[in-house]
Amino acid sequence: MAQEAIGRQLRSTVKKEGLLELSLARVPTPEPKPDEVVVRIDATPINPSDLGLMLAGADMSAANVSGSPEDPVVTAPIPPAALRSVAGRIDQSLPVGNEGAGLVLRAGSSDEARALVGKTVAIVGGAMYAQFRTIKASQCLVLPPGTKAAEGASCFVNPLTALGMVETMRAEGHTGLVHTAAASNLGQMLVKICLNDGIPLVNIVRRQQHVDLLKGLGAKHVLTSGTPTFLDELIEALAATGATLAFDAIGGGKLASQVLSCMEAAANRTAGAYNRYGSTKHKQVYIYGGLDRGPTELTRNFGMAWGIGGWLLTTFLQKIGPAAAQKLRERVAAEIKTTFASRYDKEVSLAEALRLEEIAVYGKQATGKKYLINPNKGLGR
Amino acid sequence: MAQEAIGRQLRSTVKKEGLLELSLARVPTPEPKPDEVVVRIDATPINPSDLGLMLAGADMSAANVSGSPEDPVVTAPIPPAALRSVAGRIDQSLPVGNEGAGLVLRAGSSDEARALVGKTVAIVGGAMYAQFRTIKASQCLVLPPGTKAAEGASCFVNPLTALGMVETMRAEGHTGLVHTAAASNLGQMLVKICLNDGIPLVNIVRRQQHVDLLKGLGAKHVLTSGTPTFLDELIEALAATGATLAFDAIGGGKLASQVLSCMEAAANRTAGAYNRYGSTKHKQVYIYGGLDRGPTELTRNFGMAWGIGGWLLTTFLQKIGPAAAQKLRERVAAEIKTTFASRYDKEVSLAEALRLEEIAVYGKQATGKKYLINPNKGLGR
Repeated sequence: MAQEAIGRQLRSTVKKEGLLELSLARVPTPEPKPDEVVVRIDATPINPSDLGLMLAGADMSAANVSGSPEDPVVTAPIPPAALRSVAGRIDQSLPVGNEGAGLVLRAGSSDEARALVGKTVAIVGGAMYAQFRTIKASQCLVLPPGTKAAEGASCFVNPLTALGMVETMRAEGHTGLVHTAAASNLGQMLVKICLNDGIPLVNIVRRQQHVDLLKGLGAKHVLTSGTPTFLDELIEALAATGATLAFDAIGGGKLASQVLSCMEAAANRTAGAYNRYGSTKHKQVYIYGGLDRGPTELTRNFGMAWGIGGWLLTTFLQKIGPAAAQKLRERVAAEIKTTFASRYDKEVSLAEALRLEEIAVYGKQATGKKYLINPNKGLGR
Repeated sequence: MAQEAIGRQLRSTVKKEGLLELSLARVPTPEPKPDEVVVRIDATPINPSDLGLMLAGADMSAANVSGSPEDPVVTAPIPPAALRSVAGRIDQSLPVGNEGAGLVLRAGSSDEARALVGKTVAIVGGAMYAQFRTIKASQCLVLPPGTKAAEGASCFVNPLTALGMVETMRAEGHTGLVHTAAASNLGQMLVKICLNDGIPLVNIVRRQQHVDLLKGLGAKHVLTSGTPTFLDELIEALAATGATLAFDAIGGGKLASQVLSCMEAAANRTAGAYNRYGSTKHKQVYIYGGLDRGPTELTRNFGMAWGIGGWLLTTFLQKIGPAAAQKLRERVAAEIKTTFASRYDKEVSLAEALRLEEIAVYGKQATGKKYLINPNKGLGR
């Protein structure tokens, strides 16, 4: 019996009494079908997009932990408002983790699958906070020789989202971008892509130290929201770049509306006669994250040619089709140590990821503390 | 010299000191070029879309009138916040009135123009609150024989907007509609179009008497917003109709967000497994009016497949192109006494339209009091 026959897997369950439960289940690793492989997950990041599924809106400041250090069980109450939005998953024990990387241990009978044995691959598809993952060979992205699993753990969510922003800009006829919460790993990738591809980019951050970080990467326009001069500076930057498409990671509050208002002000600088319906150039904000879960407030002082909406990577990839998506993935693999390099503040095991003091750090989305899980750390390989 | 050599024309001016001035200018009627005609305007409606340009956000409760009854001059203060949004038109004397209908008096030398002399036509293009309007023959819609100017005065804005909603629904892959402030003249047209064309429609109104009005026209789903059962009824109606596109005349407040939330709840009734990003069907709200000028508040509890944006008739007509737009106009002319019939509460002259007691009625957009101006009334024809 192979060592990977049984593996630990992080599970998140919402109990109907309004309690979140996190635990490490022992699950059998599915035997690979002919076109599948078994990957030992050596590195998997905790992305903001993972936290929604994992923590289910629970109040982690009121969390408890029981069990042993190797077998912790974390419980936390879910406020009633949050509970409504997770009603569809009650009493389902759900695996977590969008993406990861690791070594292909075994394969099914197909040539495509067998060719991957011994290779380090990046994979996406959920259930990555686990020691082992059986997955289709076609879903594996082979990392360039000499690339460690930790270097390739974030090959999909952030890189493809950043590339998706640029592709969306081109497809929808815009010629420049605005990005909020722009000092994130994703934001740093976007700065590098836009520099490489000659795309004007306006970065909006929330702290002065983030300005220095992005300027150090070569970013030209980096603004700090909330300062007294922010709106004036934003209008100047939008006039200089002609950016009419923004990607917003924050969601709640007034920032999306302010971006549209400033786009309108920038557009009206070059408009001819007075038009009571505002500028004719379409101004768009896509909300792709929810760092602020509060309501979005739109003042609608930006004419009639505007839109705001949700933006989801999977929807984007479906829209462009498998061939175009594969091209993006290949660019990521080729530039994984440069454009798409990720920084992590800490590496933890699965059991360590369930320590309350760690959750308090990585669960607070706006701090910029980025964690990497090594699900096989400390499990005696 | 023809009687129409000089005509009265309503003008709206924003003075830089923050004052709105409305007056009746005496303007020379431009001589028609070869492809133009001179139309005597006999009927022109006051639409919500005219009021923004005409009243410029001024506080009409503080208005004054001077001059004679035939030559009134109305002034009113513009609050600072509103003044910012009309900065682009300061000290410009602007004509008003999107659309109207009347008799073609004279024509330029082209055959197309001369063929219109003596015909009653509907026209669109601004400056309709005037005795006479010189306009291209190609912009005239000849009304069917026996149609009075008053019957054809509203051939464009409301009918083409209502048809535009249906065409937008088809073009963007939706199969049912939601409409707010649905008891308006426009809303009544939409009810009739949707009945004719077999399109499921959810009407949202603000008063019980409006429910009876729309049900009398044959509407199936008519809901009153703000009632304790409104949201539950809306989910039921959305589940029954499958409507995933809404046109919102209100703009401000929470209604647009509620519509998206209820669309999501309806979609999740038939969803399969739990999807943390919500239903995959795209849910859209277009704001085409601003009955509530306050901010729009979005709670974002409707997944990621959603959008909200401005919708403007002229942008829509440009998008579909002249041939498709002409087809819509011909449908309007053919059904002007049935589907596209408008009701008016009062007919006034240009001078009467500047009486403060009349402005107090038609200037209050949400009351449903609809005015028709006859610019040649009482001017001694």
